[in-house]
Amino acid sequence: MTKIGLITIGNEILLGKTINTNLGFIGEQLSLIGLPLSQSATIRDNEQDIWHTLNKMWSESDVVITTGGLGPTIDDLTKKTIARFFHKDLVFREEIWQKIQNLFTLRNLTIPKINRTQAFVPQDFITIDNDYGTAPGLHYNIENKDFFALPGVPSEMKPMIVNYIIPFLKTHYPIRPFYQKTIRTFRISESALAEKLSDIEIEDNVEIAFLPQLGKVDIRIYGFSQQNFHKAITSITNKISDYIYGYNDDTILRLVHNKLFSSKLTLSIAESCTGGLIQSQITSNPGSSNYFIGGIVSYSNEVKKNLLNVKEDTLEKYGAVSEETAFEMVKNVRQLFNSDLAIAVTGIAGPSGGTKEKPVGLVYIGINIKGEILVKGFHFSGTRIQIQNKTAENALYLLLKKQQFNSTQENTDFTEKH
Amino acid sequence: MTKIGLITIGNEILLGKTINTNLGFIGEQLSLIGLPLSQSATIRDNEQDIWHTLNKMWSESDVVITTGGLGPTIDDLTKKTIARFFHKDLVFREEIWQKIQNLFTLRNLTIPKINRTQAFVPQDFITIDNDYGTAPGLHYNIENKDFFALPGVPSEMKPMIVNYIIPFLKTHYPIRPFYQKTIRTFRISESALAEKLSDIEIEDNVEIAFLPQLGKVDIRIYGFSQQNFHKAITSITNKISDYIYGYNDDTILRLVHNKLFSSKLTLSIAESCTGGLIQSQITSNPGSSNYFIGGIVSYSNEVKKNLLNVKEDTLEKYGAVSEETAFEMVKNVRQLFNSDLAIAVTGIAGPSGGTKEKPVGLVYIGINIKGEILVKGFHFSGTRIQIQNKTAENALYLLLKKQQFNSTQENTDFTEKH
Repeated sequence: MTKIGLITIGNEILLGKTINTNLGFIGEQLSLIGLPLSQSATIRDNEQDIWHTLNKMWSESDVVITTGGLGPTIDDLTKKTIARFFHKDLVFREEIWQKIQNLFTLRNLTIPKINRTQAFVPQDFITIDNDYGTAPGLHYNIENKDFFALPGVPSEMKPMIVNYIIPFLKTHYPIRPFYQKTIRTFRISESALAEKLSDIEIEDNVEIAFLPQLGKVDIRIYGFSQQNFHKAITSITNKISDYIYGYNDDTILRLVHNKLFSSKLTLSIAESCTGGLIQSQITSNPGSSNYFIGGIVSYSNEVKKNLLNVKEDTLEKYGAVSEETAFEMVKNVRQLFNSDLAIAVTGIAGPSGGTKEKPVGLVYIGINIKGEILVKGFHFSGTRIQIQNKTAENALYLLLKKQQFNSTQENTDFTEKH
Repeated sequence: MTKIGLITIGNEILLGKTINTNLGFIGEQLSLIGLPLSQSATIRDNEQDIWHTLNKMWSESDVVITTGGLGPTIDDLTKKTIARFFHKDLVFREEIWQKIQNLFTLRNLTIPKINRTQAFVPQDFITIDNDYGTAPGLHYNIENKDFFALPGVPSEMKPMIVNYIIPFLKTHYPIRPFYQKTIRTFRISESALAEKLSDIEIEDNVEIAFLPQLGKVDIRIYGFSQQNFHKAITSITNKISDYIYGYNDDTILRLVHNKLFSSKLTLSIAESCTGGLIQSQITSNPGSSNYFIGGIVSYSNEVKKNLLNVKEDTLEKYGAVSEETAFEMVKNVRQLFNSDLAIAVTGIAGPSGGTKEKPVGLVYIGINIKGEILVKGFHFSGTRIQIQNKTAENALYLLLKKQQFNSTQENTDFTEKH
């Protein structure tokens, strides 16, 4: 198995000033051709650390890639250290100097002298063209192993990965088809999933990973054995089909959007505790104007009463956060906006405002499908923003399920705890 | 100088499926107390790699922190390997099992048997409470060095860093004062800023970094020299004061919220192209119900007409995306909701729907301060979501400025391009 190591060089990353997105990009590109990264190190831009890490990684890998430290400024020592590590001198390469000068001329800029250092390259190294900056990438092949040094700026680094390194690795290293799929689940915890799947046999060359997110868990299945990969997917899917809402890049929001976009049905929304979040999520989708008419954020009781026509009696008797208020909200918003479908939510997002009877996290979600109304109660945990997001996601999920199955079995007084 | 190493464990990071935000957070927190990270490694979740990297990092560091691999599922081997590395047995700790059970009981869930593994801890290790999940953090002090193992889920890991590790390191390691400040600017590009600041002299032991974000640029100043640090801040602030909206963690949203929270004024909002985003941002703040009454998402023209009382004539003559419509929206929404202040936006978020006269990115923002109305036109660039976010931020910025200066110099027909 080919071992590939990545070294990202940069003080800014270790200081938490810059997020290491290069690792994510390179990791993904390599995994797509079945040559996943074995390890990655992030180090400071100094000679000792670069030498030390390069020495270790080179001894453990078939391929080593570095990013960062190729700029023209004095704090960039990478190239010198690389040359010394491979026992090479830095030599001036006229054609690279020409390219750098051209880049400045094209942009009508005078070229700073400091950039001349970028035309020095370790002897016998191949250079990789940089179409978006001044520092060329470097490539050196020795002892049947390959070393690559790339600039750290993502827009300069990415084309070198895609256009040079990936094609090179594909032709020079044994590629094994790599299979991967994400199963996305909702309304079940990681540990409950793990328990349901505890007797699944995962055979050789396939791995599974659980990725818990806010209120959801993704299961990633990946590996080199096509047969075992498909076996794993089938056995997992069979065990937990009730909790699966989608695969790979599916999100609940996107599934709802796709469904409504092609449905010719219209939607309106009334929000209290989510304060516009559901409408904002819906309208983040291009084309949502095809079905989304509009809505009301009824944050105060006055608005619930005056604009949404929730009865004063209902608010007094049951309170703003109640099944009854949610019912009236979802009934009235559909009428007010003259839509086919409607969503309404009311709840206590916190951190304050909770009581013993109505604690923070208590939320009622109403769904109205052409007059057929479903209201469900939930008790969400977490911060204010987590409760708002869980409310939005559950509201969209209810609409999706209701639309999919058109089921009328669930009645309005059903209360669930989450 | 104290050497601190971080190991993030997770196949997912190496496969590019998850961005390594833990490195960013931990790097920043440590740099804030003057104990910056020396190095970081990202490795796969297998016994051999964990052992190997831990062995190397432990020999090179005073403090080692690991994140990831403490979950209950079968893919988590970290704890076993750590125990073996430090020659410890895993022992069952009743009080941790109690805490885990309590967490499930609180949420009305039955506890999966698999979670019992999380109550096993290497002998002699201190545990760090996890208030947001089931896996406790681990701490082991030996040979005047410290080892910490934390869960990989950011919401569980972060409190352990802030509440346990940072205070511990502060009292047990020599801290060198490290100064840092972020100057936050708006409505100026990175290169324009760099040009304005090109003749600033930055002296020894201080560094500055430009961090462009969507429509905004942060300038970070940091270093060990207090004197030069303050000098740098003063000279930068003097040069660009017009563009500074805040410092460090200030956001435009938070500044607006703080201002309104203490103002006793009320706010209502009418949104078209932002589809609820501004209201959602406002209501993400705890306490926003003190001043935010509610609003309308008038996505279709029908809603603008029927609910917001925008004149049919105005819509026909000038169109939904026009200064005139924005004016009526912000006038009427304030009346409808009986609020002191109001915001209204209408525009074309794209990607389709633009024309030559009214291209994608054309947005009108209206601000109403007790009947005094300001409407501004903008032309934002970017994707749909970027245009929506720029619109929201500029709307809040206008309200903030209008509130701050109470200026009436700007008139309603002023059109700016951005």
